[in-house]
Amino acid sequence: MIFILSLMCLKAKNRISIVEDSYRRRSVTRLIAVFGAKNSGKTTVVEYLIGRLVRDGFNVAALKHIHHEFTIDTEGKDTWKMARRGASIVASISPNEVAILHKRIDDWRINFNKLLQFLEKEDIDVAVAEGFHNILGKTPTVLKIITIKTDEEAHHFINTTSPPILALVKRAETQLKINPGSISIFNLPPGDELYQLVLKSIRKQTPGSGMV
Amino acid sequence: MIFILSLMCLKAKNRISIVEDSYRRRSVTRLIAVFGAKNSGKTTVVEYLIGRLVRDGFNVAALKHIHHEFTIDTEGKDTWKMARRGASIVASISPNEVAILHKRIDDWRINFNKLLQFLEKEDIDVAVAEGFHNILGKTPTVLKIITIKTDEEAHHFINTTSPPILALVKRAETQLKINPGSISIFNLPPGDELYQLVLKSIRKQTPGSGMV
Repeated sequence: MIFILSLMCLKAKNRISIVEDSYRRRSVTRLIAVFGAKNSGKTTVVEYLIGRLVRDGFNVAALKHIHHEFTIDTEGKDTWKMARRGASIVASISPNEVAILHKRIDDWRINFNKLLQFLEKEDIDVAVAEGFHNILGKTPTVLKIITIKTDEEAHHFINTTSPPILALVKRAETQLKINPGSISIFNLPPGDELYQLVLKSIRKQTPGSGMV
Repeated sequence: MIFILSLMCLKAKNRISIVEDSYRRRSVTRLIAVFGAKNSGKTTVVEYLIGRLVRDGFNVAALKHIHHEFTIDTEGKDTWKMARRGASIVASISPNEVAILHKRIDDWRINFNKLLQFLEKEDIDVAVAEGFHNILGKTPTVLKIITIKTDEEAHHFINTTSPPILALVKRAETQLKINPGSISIFNLPPGDELYQLVLKSIRKQTPGSGMV
């Protein structure tokens, strides 16, 4: 009976068998964060990991940190006008998207933790975050990947990031002088070796809240 | 002690005193829906009501129904790229906005009810919805306003909408032949009389879930 229910759930969510039931039962959203300076390849790595994880049946969320004042909305549109009038939340529902914009921001860390709780409720298996170094850089439950253009950047991010750091990702032509110890080094574009390392790490990651 | 806590809450949320504590304690999100044909003034009425409610200290959400396939995101942006790779949820966090895009849409009604539950958890006092006639048109807990350009439109929407219908809003030059009974009639642009009617109706609305 449980087996049939599991199958139904899998079918309902279009998941395939690589995602183990034992993993699901923990119902904790695993967090992978990709850190790096501007133009070092963060989005490329995030996009690649999302695509592979989705293909393997994981229910994936993407989290993007934007440093400057920004709205995903477009000036002049109805939703933008409603926000301008002071609505705390502006939601737009279309046949292919529910978009919820929160305009009343209290505190970075509180908002981020609320977001994580929300992802767990939505049965997200893995969240891939781009940025958020100040929030996630020291959190032991977060799997970290660092993208770098130079030796100096590698040095900086390794020194300001706590384990587990899975990988440094760089351009093929970048020669590294530093020794990153147990951290694996990969070249862009990201490929299967990096993904397998991420997959292994997700699977062996001890259950526990990703709260930061 | 409760009084001090209430004051702190009010302060934290920048609310002013017109919103009664008795109202808040019910913690139910009141729903106002504005229905009408294209270019009949829906957005104008929604914008106006949001602005007035916010000014009076209500914590307001705006809900917009978009009939065609649509993303609030912009093609080519990083968030758009992440969605394209199959992420179920794409969240972007900037200093002035948390945007959560749900890309895995199951069912209109389920999604809408999930959205309402979410608004109640977020302490939204009033949600002003533009559209959603097929979901909200028959719901007795929803306060309805109809914007019209012609007699025929008035006829159509009155016949397909269940009470309470608070008001018909029309252009000054539009002459109505139909008799809308107890439904008030206002001209565009929306003004204080319409708002006072909405305010009175919100206050006397019986507590109860707005679930549809």
